[in-house]
Amino acid sequence: MIVVMQQDATEEQINAVVARLDKNGFQVHLSRGVERTIIGAIGDRTRLQDEFLEAMAGVEKVMPVLQPYKLASRAFHPEDSVVMVGDLAIGGEEIHILAGPCAVESREQLLETARLVKGAGATILRGGAFKPRTSPYSFQGLEEEGLKLLAEAREETGLKIVTEVMDVRTLPLVAEYADILQIGARNMQNFFLLREVARVDKPVLLKRGLSATIEEWLMAAEYIMSGGNQRVILCERGIRTFETYTRNTLDLAAVPVVKYFSHLPVIVDPSHAIGKWRFVPAMARAAVAAGADGLLVEVHPNPAEALCDGPQSLTPENFAAMMADLRQTAPVVGRRLAGVAAGA
Amino acid sequence: MIVVMQQDATEEQINAVVARLDKNGFQVHLSRGVERTIIGAIGDRTRLQDEFLEAMAGVEKVMPVLQPYKLASRAFHPEDSVVMVGDLAIGGEEIHILAGPCAVESREQLLETARLVKGAGATILRGGAFKPRTSPYSFQGLEEEGLKLLAEAREETGLKIVTEVMDVRTLPLVAEYADILQIGARNMQNFFLLREVARVDKPVLLKRGLSATIEEWLMAAEYIMSGGNQRVILCERGIRTFETYTRNTLDLAAVPVVKYFSHLPVIVDPSHAIGKWRFVPAMARAAVAAGADGLLVEVHPNPAEALCDGPQSLTPENFAAMMADLRQTAPVVGRRLAGVAAGA
Amino acid sequence: MIVVMQQDATEEQINAVVARLDKNGFQVHLSRGVERTIIGAIGDRTRLQDEFLEAMAGVEKVMPVLQPYKLASRAFHPEDSVVMVGDLAIGGEEIHILAGPCAVESREQLLETARLVKGAGATILRGGAFKPRTSPYSFQGLEEEGLKLLAEAREETGLKIVTEVMDVRTLPLVAEYADILQIGARNMQNFFLLREVARVDKPVLLKRGLSATIEEWLMAAEYIMSGGNQRVILCERGIRTFETYTRNTLDLAAVPVVKYFSHLPVIVDPSHAIGKWRFVPAMARAAVAAGADGLLVEVHPNPAEALCDGPQSLTPENFAAMMADLRQTAPVVGRRLAGVAAGA
Amino acid sequence: MIVVMQQDATEEQINAVVARLDKNGFQVHLSRGVERTIIGAIGDRTRLQDEFLEAMAGVEKVMPVLQPYKLASRAFHPEDSVVMVGDLAIGGEEIHILAGPCAVESREQLLETARLVKGAGATILRGGAFKPRTSPYSFQGLEEEGLKLLAEAREETGLKIVTEVMDVRTLPLVAEYADILQIGARNMQNFFLLREVARVDKPVLLKRGLSATIEEWLMAAEYIMSGGNQRVILCERGIRTFETYTRNTLDLAAVPVVKYFSHLPVIVDPSHAIGKWRFVPAMARAAVAAGADGLLVEVHPNPAEALCDGPQSLTPENFAAMMADLRQTAPVVGRRLAGVAAGA
Repeated sequence: MIVVMQQDATEEQINAVVARLDKNGFQVHLSRGVERTIIGAIGDRTRLQDEFLEAMAGVEKVMPVLQPYKLASRAFHPEDSVVMVGDLAIGGEEIHILAGPCAVESREQLLETARLVKGAGATILRGGAFKPRTSPYSFQGLEEEGLKLLAEAREETGLKIVTEVMDVRTLPLVAEYADILQIGARNMQNFFLLREVARVDKPVLLKRGLSATIEEWLMAAEYIMSGGNQRVILCERGIRTFETYTRNTLDLAAVPVVKYFSHLPVIVDPSHAIGKWRFVPAMARAAVAAGADGLLVEVHPNPAEALCDGPQSLTPENFAAMMADLRQTAPVVGRRLAGVAAGA
Repeated sequence: MIVVMQQDATEEQINAVVARLDKNGFQVHLSRGVERTIIGAIGDRTRLQDEFLEAMAGVEKVMPVLQPYKLASRAFHPEDSVVMVGDLAIGGEEIHILAGPCAVESREQLLETARLVKGAGATILRGGAFKPRTSPYSFQGLEEEGLKLLAEAREETGLKIVTEVMDVRTLPLVAEYADILQIGARNMQNFFLLREVARVDKPVLLKRGLSATIEEWLMAAEYIMSGGNQRVILCERGIRTFETYTRNTLDLAAVPVVKYFSHLPVIVDPSHAIGKWRFVPAMARAAVAAGADGLLVEVHPNPAEALCDGPQSLTPENFAAMMADLRQTAPVVGRRLAGVAAGA
Repeated sequence: MIVVMQQDATEEQINAVVARLDKNGFQVHLSRGVERTIIGAIGDRTRLQDEFLEAMAGVEKVMPVLQPYKLASRAFHPEDSVVMVGDLAIGGEEIHILAGPCAVESREQLLETARLVKGAGATILRGGAFKPRTSPYSFQGLEEEGLKLLAEAREETGLKIVTEVMDVRTLPLVAEYADILQIGARNMQNFFLLREVARVDKPVLLKRGLSATIEEWLMAAEYIMSGGNQRVILCERGIRTFETYTRNTLDLAAVPVVKYFSHLPVIVDPSHAIGKWRFVPAMARAAVAAGADGLLVEVHPNPAEALCDGPQSLTPENFAAMMADLRQTAPVVGRRLAGVAAGA
Repeated sequence: MIVVMQQDATEEQINAVVARLDKNGFQVHLSRGVERTIIGAIGDRTRLQDEFLEAMAGVEKVMPVLQPYKLASRAFHPEDSVVMVGDLAIGGEEIHILAGPCAVESREQLLETARLVKGAGATILRGGAFKPRTSPYSFQGLEEEGLKLLAEAREETGLKIVTEVMDVRTLPLVAEYADILQIGARNMQNFFLLREVARVDKPVLLKRGLSATIEEWLMAAEYIMSGGNQRVILCERGIRTFETYTRNTLDLAAVPVVKYFSHLPVIVDPSHAIGKWRFVPAMARAAVAAGADGLLVEVHPNPAEALCDGPQSLTPENFAAMMADLRQTAPVVGRRLAGVAAGA
């Protein structure tokens, strides 16, 4: 790391910083410029946090040189990681589509959707069982009953299941049913929850927080990995900006950027990012072209009756059309869509 | 609410929207302009969410007319709410200073800080016992031991105690010790946690999320209030923007804006917002001038040795100077600082 | 528009708003709810700005129902507009690549780049002649000499030329040379400049401002169109957000969104948005997949010697590879790349 | 500056960077860590821009160590600068209030406002003569006639005049009338305009751009100063964020931060930042408490008839009340309001 001293830093202050670095095993180099003294330090950043130095007298700022994550970095693991979900490989040659309703609402709704998305080529079924939402006056989910319906849908269709875990107390229950544990955007830095999913032997789908930088997102992955669970799948789902024509701003550049710094697979959720079904297929196509390893898409047999996220849900027809489209797009990046469309 | 139909919406689509509004008890008015049909609807928004309508065929957009919160609104409770913390009144004539270290680190550190901030006029002691942080490699808090030290500091100084609760599982434990339960910025929309603190008979300090709008923040308060706990104190602590010279951007306008729309007390945390102790006193003064009911400020006997947030912590000397300053500022807004400075 | 009155608005205040709307030819409808009176008004928004009403006593807020742009809207012009640049059609079936250096630096640099990008299939050459930059200590452009070199490159290669106009005083000069006048992101709301380019008989490439909403961007286009120049090409180039791993955040969703609300062609500049050449090809591919009508890309024969934007410039080899890639991507959206690669 | 090499950078690439730094007169120091080689370079940053290095093969990133501005920095000029506007000292002990309408609309409106704000203690009259606005369908200003009315108001009241210059062509005209040349937020990086005002012997009020970082803002000041005009007054006027309850987000922390890094005076425009008159007085008070050297405030004799910015304009009564308030606030920061209130 680089420690920039204030212009009027005293010899004593400079020496105190050097001594502290030294004590913590850092190799130190001093550059005395006309305007500032700059201290370069090479060592193990986990032994001395930047903020210890930044709080010392005479220090102007501390600039980290390397990324703060390790296990999640390419430096640690140069090859792409492939996360297995049963026999499905996420991050390999095949692109997976995770599709389904925002919330599990009923047996009919879920099974119908499951058959439809399976028929169009999806390999994983999404659906929320716990849905505490922004308004305390909205539908809050079917809870365990929802999980059972997901399992029934898996039984019938062979689709794997991804569902969100929001509460450490229900984690054991969710883990019993789910093939992939989803950590929602609002929980990306819920470190208690991250710690617990780190101890479960299931892949984790880690959504990027609405205002999380790529670095913080990778640090959240690091949290899970350092806790013992290496099977992390990242999911870009839009960040909060000033633009209001879309719900959030889908940061597609995060896909190649994350893939440069990290070996983890990255999927994209265009539905939440955009918030309007009309624009979802174009962004799904763009995500595949940008290099995404999969897509998380909301589909509902009747969006106008959906208890959650209707405006961003595709109808079965629109979903099928989008899938046909993506099947053509994948070869552009040297890949193919997993799953087989019925009648294809 | 207002439903704007697409330019090419059919009669049938318009009728379907009207029928749905009608069925849910809304009073409907149709305006057929040259370019668009617009449907005005008056009724109970909790009976029909905007998104149900937005997902209907032919609908361009749905525009809510009223704020979505009720219990938190001035319409529901026109007078300022005063939240009692024992015998301290937050939101009344007196401005309260909540001060202390980021994390409880040791008995010495905490007791020394408690005496110092008490001596300078603070009325409430802050200190984190559970500190899971961005990096898994950082100090994670003293946990229950930290809570006991806080209680000891209360015993000795008479200061009330505010500490963060981050996990539903430790809520009973934290509630046993704390006088105010703090919900951190990252948990502002952790609805499971909000539900649980709603059932505890303790005041809740609700920090604004890094990327939360004022409306979402008030909806989070509504969540707690609708669950049975009316004693919510709001805390502005900076939002995430593109600016990098400060840690976050302190949105001081949120103080008068929240006070216009809501009756709840609002305090300000300049330490986390700015991230650099040097600028904290100026922003503390500005917060009081903007109408804040209190301040949450980080103080550490030796910031360079702080295990957390050293760069933004005031030394005891700087804190005392700031308090003297604020004591002069409060009368500008017709108020006075609670607490008595030693020797004053 | 919808005027929401304050809860305690008086009869007199309501009547005053109604009278004002009435006087300006609006058709008015009053809805008296339990909590609020809401006034719906249908009429010509150009006759009475929202802010006149918002400033009236008793008014809580004014909510516009329709988009404020007309000429730029699909309502006004339902079919896609095709902007002709000589014999090149922007917004038609063919996707055009506008490529070249950030700045014109020398005869050799420009001609070499022109030949290279032409050889790889670009149809339009980009290059800045006036380059006043963030730092007063940086290279500021070759000015008229640069324009002459661009013309020479056009002469030799047959490529059209796009170059930025930044100053009303040099507009006549730039217009003499350029085939497309570029308005940079920082000038998107330089209304004096917009007025002047509106009077020139040349297509205008209008870049989105760093912090401009899609609506403001379309209003800037409206400014040019209402001034008499209908040949506007929009260019998404990234918006400013909190993310720091990329220079800006490329808002690719803006492509389908703009195409839904407007008939104007939209191209994408991945180079400026991302700021690092390494990620440009992936985002170029994604932009085409999202439906862009073209791309603006920085290419330099030797990026490390570039006087401007070297880090985001592609080498000729990388550019050629990207072009081959895009040639395969275009058919996915039912289009083809304009231009012919040498030897293809 | 610090050059961080990629993990797999070759000896040759490292040597090339060192050679280039060397050639440009930098003193170089190499740190070879386990993971990376880091090159520290001390020298004149104006001789070699960061981006030259960043574009070199094997370079991961370039980190500037010092601020890029010089003339605007405290390092160059440690004491506070006081900018004289005639006999008024901006940045001294007295806080100045610059007040008036958004736009000059008529003789009556302007003179009435001038008398009113003078009577309440303002020392400088604001008013726009050129008002090209977001919508081409809005009022565009009285132009030269407006400037003449401003001069007449100065004549009558003795107030100095600040008015915006938006176009290099009208600069000579505006400079003939104005006491302070205002550069609007949208023109903060209009470098042609900055260059021209740098050559005029008048103080410049430089508003911060909506999406400008503090560093870019100071670089814009540097542009003017390096061009020969040292009399720059900075004006914070809100930045664009995701929050929608206010027009922009007033970044009050920018006041102490700028004052730490720069010697230039800083004033605050709460009217544009907030966009609603109701919240202006609280934020004006907060700005003074934060250390602002002055305020720019919109006042209109009849906001509901204002041709521009009515919703954020104070009535004369509200303005007078705010001034009384500020007169009490100034001593809190050891200052006093310039100007004398009539009857005081």
